[in-house]
Amino acid sequence: MTYCVGIKVNDGLVFASDSRTNAGVDLVSTFRKMFVFDRPGDRMFALLTTGNLSVTQSVVSILSQQFESGGGMHDLMAAGSMFDAACIVGNVMREVQDRDGPAIRTAGVDSNALVIFGGQVRGDRARLYQIYTPGNFVEATAETPYFQNGEVKYGKPVLDRVIGPETSLMDAAKCALISIDSTMRSNMTVGPPIDMLLYRTDALAIGHRASLEADDPYFSALSEKWSESLNRAFLSVEDPDWPI
Amino acid sequence: MTYCVGIKVNDGLVFASDSRTNAGVDLVSTFRKMFVFDRPGDRMFALLTTGNLSVTQSVVSILSQQFESGGGMHDLMAAGSMFDAACIVGNVMREVQDRDGPAIRTAGVDSNALVIFGGQVRGDRARLYQIYTPGNFVEATAETPYFQNGEVKYGKPVLDRVIGPETSLMDAAKCALISIDSTMRSNMTVGPPIDMLLYRTDALAIGHRASLEADDPYFSALSEKWSESLNRAFLSVEDPDWPI
Repeated sequence: MTYCVGIKVNDGLVFASDSRTNAGVDLVSTFRKMFVFDRPGDRMFALLTTGNLSVTQSVVSILSQQFESGGGMHDLMAAGSMFDAACIVGNVMREVQDRDGPAIRTAGVDSNALVIFGGQVRGDRARLYQIYTPGNFVEATAETPYFQNGEVKYGKPVLDRVIGPETSLMDAAKCALISIDSTMRSNMTVGPPIDMLLYRTDALAIGHRASLEADDPYFSALSEKWSESLNRAFLSVEDPDWPI
Repeated sequence: MTYCVGIKVNDGLVFASDSRTNAGVDLVSTFRKMFVFDRPGDRMFALLTTGNLSVTQSVVSILSQQFESGGGMHDLMAAGSMFDAACIVGNVMREVQDRDGPAIRTAGVDSNALVIFGGQVRGDRARLYQIYTPGNFVEATAETPYFQNGEVKYGKPVLDRVIGPETSLMDAAKCALISIDSTMRSNMTVGPPIDMLLYRTDALAIGHRASLEADDPYFSALSEKWSESLNRAFLSVEDPDWPI
């Protein structure tokens, strides 16, 4: 399994993903799921991929080749807006699914894949999308300011309680880390290193990028402090006065 | 969907369940999922049922009939230990699955069902079991002191962080309520009233039983306080000092 989360706040975008890929608990591998394409001052795109790894690697390879060489049908460099860019990623997903999907499914394997895709193109707003297996996509809104993929449920309550459009970029980053920490604690198929990317609205360049190992000082401190604070929060809730 | 949790601590047992039964979001019904059989001073059993409602209702009806009339093959009154009692519940599950399962599955419906079963019989310890569709079961231990069924993931992190054998009975009850509150907040298919049962070790009688509506003063206060405390816990975690 895996866990990825993308958050859109007014201040910018946060992308976070674990690096655990597994086919059963006895075959655990580490693959990065975060990919970035940028031309500072003009555009910045980040992708968080989940699902069939051969599919997502193909999607990223096609985007990457054309981003570097330019001029193809799927060139993110040519996108005039984030919507156009999301269409490009969706089209590549559809192309890979058309090419490999039937054979993958004939082999009894799931070809589904998902991409959280966000960024900003000069002249457009910072935007965040969830792109599905068929290549269609939805955009994050003020009411639904985040997307999660993979093992999403353990880390959802903290996002639901904390994240809104006014949340600061640092708080959104902290919340993403707590969401991942909660998931790792309850599910062994999600694991470090944690890739993080912060993007500040209108920067048109990567903000901060980090890869946090399990023993990263900030991540360990956050994990411990959150656990303590949660236990303190628990104690601060009054006991029921039930007779027993 | 549904959500049930049974917790075993040294002080006793906590049972909690929501009452939402649905077949799609456009057909929502309320059915109780908690059933109790007791003879004060001698034995107390509680069941939390999830899964196919026709199956679980049959299981409870058979247990109930024989508990009241006595003398049948599935008489919980005749159980000499909690292990014997769990065998009886498992046997009834197997009998109902043998009787109805094939026809249910032929109709394309899932016949799976789960029962969290716990209590105490005089002369034995208080014990907690998870009983599966085939009638087999596992017992809660010091390392795994709780069982959840239904929509389990949202409410698992708080259980993982708070519950251990030394947790007091009231804290275990509070934690069960917070676990249910977290689940209701993130998933609309889990809803009130919340049935709660507390059992104190060696009491051999029901401790406290409550059915909490959404507007129950304690449950509302707990929900609000937990939300506040969680946000305060969030703020107490230091921001990363990432340059951005």
